[in-house]
Amino acid sequence: MNRYEALANAMAREIRSGSIAAGSRMPSLRQIIAQHGVSQSTAFRAYYLLEEWGLVRARERSGYYVARGAKVPAEKAPPATPPAQSGSVDISDLVFSVLDAAKHPGIVPLGSAFPSPQLFPLPRLARSLARASRLVSPWSTVADLPPGNEQLRRQISLRYVGMGLSQPMEEIVVTNGALEALNLCLMAVTRPGDVVAVESPGFYAALQAIERLDLRAVEIPVDPASGLDLDALAAALQTHPVRACWFMTNFQNPTGATLSIEKKKALVELLAKHDVPLIEDDVYGELHFQPEYPLPALAFDKHGLVMHCSSFSKTLAPGYRIGWACAGRFTDKVQRLKLMTTLSASIPAQAGIADYLQYGGYDKHLRKLRASLQAQLREMEAAIARLLPRGVRVTHPAGGYFVWLELPEAIDAMQLHRLAIERGVSLAPGPIFSASHAFTNCVRLNFGHPWSQKVEHAIRTLGELLDHPSVRGADR
Amino acid sequence: MNRYEALANAMAREIRSGSIAAGSRMPSLRQIIAQHGVSQSTAFRAYYLLEEWGLVRARERSGYYVARGAKVPAEKAPPATPPAQSGSVDISDLVFSVLDAAKHPGIVPLGSAFPSPQLFPLPRLARSLARASRLVSPWSTVADLPPGNEQLRRQISLRYVGMGLSQPMEEIVVTNGALEALNLCLMAVTRPGDVVAVESPGFYAALQAIERLDLRAVEIPVDPASGLDLDALAAALQTHPVRACWFMTNFQNPTGATLSIEKKKALVELLAKHDVPLIEDDVYGELHFQPEYPLPALAFDKHGLVMHCSSFSKTLAPGYRIGWACAGRFTDKVQRLKLMTTLSASIPAQAGIADYLQYGGYDKHLRKLRASLQAQLREMEAAIARLLPRGVRVTHPAGGYFVWLELPEAIDAMQLHRLAIERGVSLAPGPIFSASHAFTNCVRLNFGHPWSQKVEHAIRTLGELLDHPSVRGADR
Repeated sequence: MNRYEALANAMAREIRSGSIAAGSRMPSLRQIIAQHGVSQSTAFRAYYLLEEWGLVRARERSGYYVARGAKVPAEKAPPATPPAQSGSVDISDLVFSVLDAAKHPGIVPLGSAFPSPQLFPLPRLARSLARASRLVSPWSTVADLPPGNEQLRRQISLRYVGMGLSQPMEEIVVTNGALEALNLCLMAVTRPGDVVAVESPGFYAALQAIERLDLRAVEIPVDPASGLDLDALAAALQTHPVRACWFMTNFQNPTGATLSIEKKKALVELLAKHDVPLIEDDVYGELHFQPEYPLPALAFDKHGLVMHCSSFSKTLAPGYRIGWACAGRFTDKVQRLKLMTTLSASIPAQAGIADYLQYGGYDKHLRKLRASLQAQLREMEAAIARLLPRGVRVTHPAGGYFVWLELPEAIDAMQLHRLAIERGVSLAPGPIFSASHAFTNCVRLNFGHPWSQKVEHAIRTLGELLDHPSVRGADR
Repeated sequence: MNRYEALANAMAREIRSGSIAAGSRMPSLRQIIAQHGVSQSTAFRAYYLLEEWGLVRARERSGYYVARGAKVPAEKAPPATPPAQSGSVDISDLVFSVLDAAKHPGIVPLGSAFPSPQLFPLPRLARSLARASRLVSPWSTVADLPPGNEQLRRQISLRYVGMGLSQPMEEIVVTNGALEALNLCLMAVTRPGDVVAVESPGFYAALQAIERLDLRAVEIPVDPASGLDLDALAAALQTHPVRACWFMTNFQNPTGATLSIEKKKALVELLAKHDVPLIEDDVYGELHFQPEYPLPALAFDKHGLVMHCSSFSKTLAPGYRIGWACAGRFTDKVQRLKLMTTLSASIPAQAGIADYLQYGGYDKHLRKLRASLQAQLREMEAAIARLLPRGVRVTHPAGGYFVWLELPEAIDAMQLHRLAIERGVSLAPGPIFSASHAFTNCVRLNFGHPWSQKVEHAIRTLGELLDHPSVRGADR
């Protein structure tokens, strides 16, 4: 172990034992240097590690403080009851430290949130973009202010028709990716201090949005196989003043779980009874391995309460940043928020995707993409069976490109993440998927990259690391 | 006068007299139909007009309510003292009704916020976009997450060097237009309930952001010739807990005023004394008619307190939605907010503009654009002198594409706006530029469109309307 790692581990033990209280200021770098006789670089790197582990937070020009939640015990949230209290969220530092670590070039991106861009028809899309940007009317700058490029909204509307749903193009707000759509929908239906129900484990961006907007989260357990626990949701709606839900109903991030049609219907009915809007994040829906698109909750909504958000970022054009919201009765409000915050999505990017949808062969591309992902899932499952220890449980998603691994209870996923990065492999550790940093023995793996010796080797590395003493919590 | 106008005027009188209290519910459409014996269409159009005048607000599925501020008397804010109280803001309904009205095709866009897209090298830019999107690495999706495309940030950094300023590319956050940059900067330094100093008259998006984020505005008077009143700002800093300022230092929207170098230095010093960050909106800076870019306040900042925001939307590529923030000591926070809310600006749009900046001849284009705007200003000034009544005062900006007209005191700019739209001319009425809907006798005109008989005729129309009885407040 390096000197800075030893120092960080020593400080981590002090924090975990509670001898430095949550919220209190850590010793200054200067104090650490004097006290432990280490170099400035060692002291700095030790704090960097502590920050990466979510144990301390840096405050600008003020030093390091023990993070709230740093003492959260390493145990899973109870599976079928909602947490007793809704709480404010403190997730971003952890997420950003993990994302930053995974960005380094050369890392095998098992922790990535995106599929491989090699799976996308980028040259064909570039031709559409080039043609559309030559042809687009200069005046569209003004005319295409929200709700966005008319041709694109028509094409999106037609895709809903393909699912048997009617979404008039007037009710489609084009956004900078689904992330903006989700954020605008959340803003449209909440005020600071409101309670929002989210999934646990769930997409960290929901937790970040809740943190940013001064909302409070109530976490609803997600079963890795059957998805959201509706009984827990019903109980939460009874005991908390829930103002909105943010759920992913198809190929949920991170578990890959999909709600059955019956559960989707029951969800919509339950929320209608309480008049609570549902922000439905459906960015993976098109990546189904079964023949049909699994209908979103939107399909069963009779009250305009479901805000259906999706994008082309996971299926066609990750960098174009084009998504949309069908926001039901909240459409006008979402449009206005869009106009106020970012005005409009990029006009040529919208026009380029519209052209591709009309002439580029999107459905053919999707069929190919789904087949690739399904084949990669088979490889991933085989490698996991072959190379990871027996105690590992893995989900079997019917679409998307994530599997969720439950490792033996003693495993510390944050430590595993750190050691894996050092060996050139990223993964998404469980604690970034909940406000309480639970799921300490879980990881999300991405199978959205073409299978290769390198990926195979990365799984083998994970298998080796699962035997590493510090990963097994030996130094706690 | 049409029947619906007569009905709207009658209801407006009741609202203005106070006989229907602010916040109370207006009669339903059904009641209006029964009471006045008018058709449904007439009743609806009357309410539409009242909404456009800012007198009523529609609430979803609940009818119309008398707007807060509907009874604001038609008098100008005192010129050199800050308002006694900071207030929450209620501007969006008014702004959106004006913007919507101006969007109709065929309208002469004197009220537009954009210059004519005909002045931009869009075909050349489309070639850059096509080339860049062919060449852009698929992996840039991940690598170009904030802070944005490296080549683009290098080009932006070089433009600062051209001004004699050093802005390392690491400190440049690329955004979806300057509007997002400004909003992210505001979020980075405020919390709900905080007080923010804005200009009066000033850019309505600042007021919308303050409304959206539950902030409070303190309005600092802007002199149409010399710009922001620094004495009033100093007084406001003494009397209000101001947490941030959002000012436009060059060719201010709507007055066109530019702060002198001395005033910019004094502004930066004053804010440093109070440790208050400045969000500097400098989107018009490149459109200077003098040989040199008028240095922004950023140039005099020694404490990282100035967040300099700009974009290519007013100078090159309105629809591409590419802007940036140099956010000083708040850079990390702004980057994180960007990552959380919209992830990244469109990758091909960023790459396309970067290619154009490097190879497309941006400086040559800017020289031509500035010359066009200056020539159009001369035409506009001549037409105003020739075709508008004597009592009209007009600013003489040294850049940008807005002039600010102070009309005779009796003129009602909202009525003028409404009648002008009916005759095919848009303008930006003074009340949309302040939280208190002041500047009732002022309008902003756009000279960013090539001069033509049609524009000339539009000015003539305004001259005629200034004699219209309802515009002169005769029906009050």
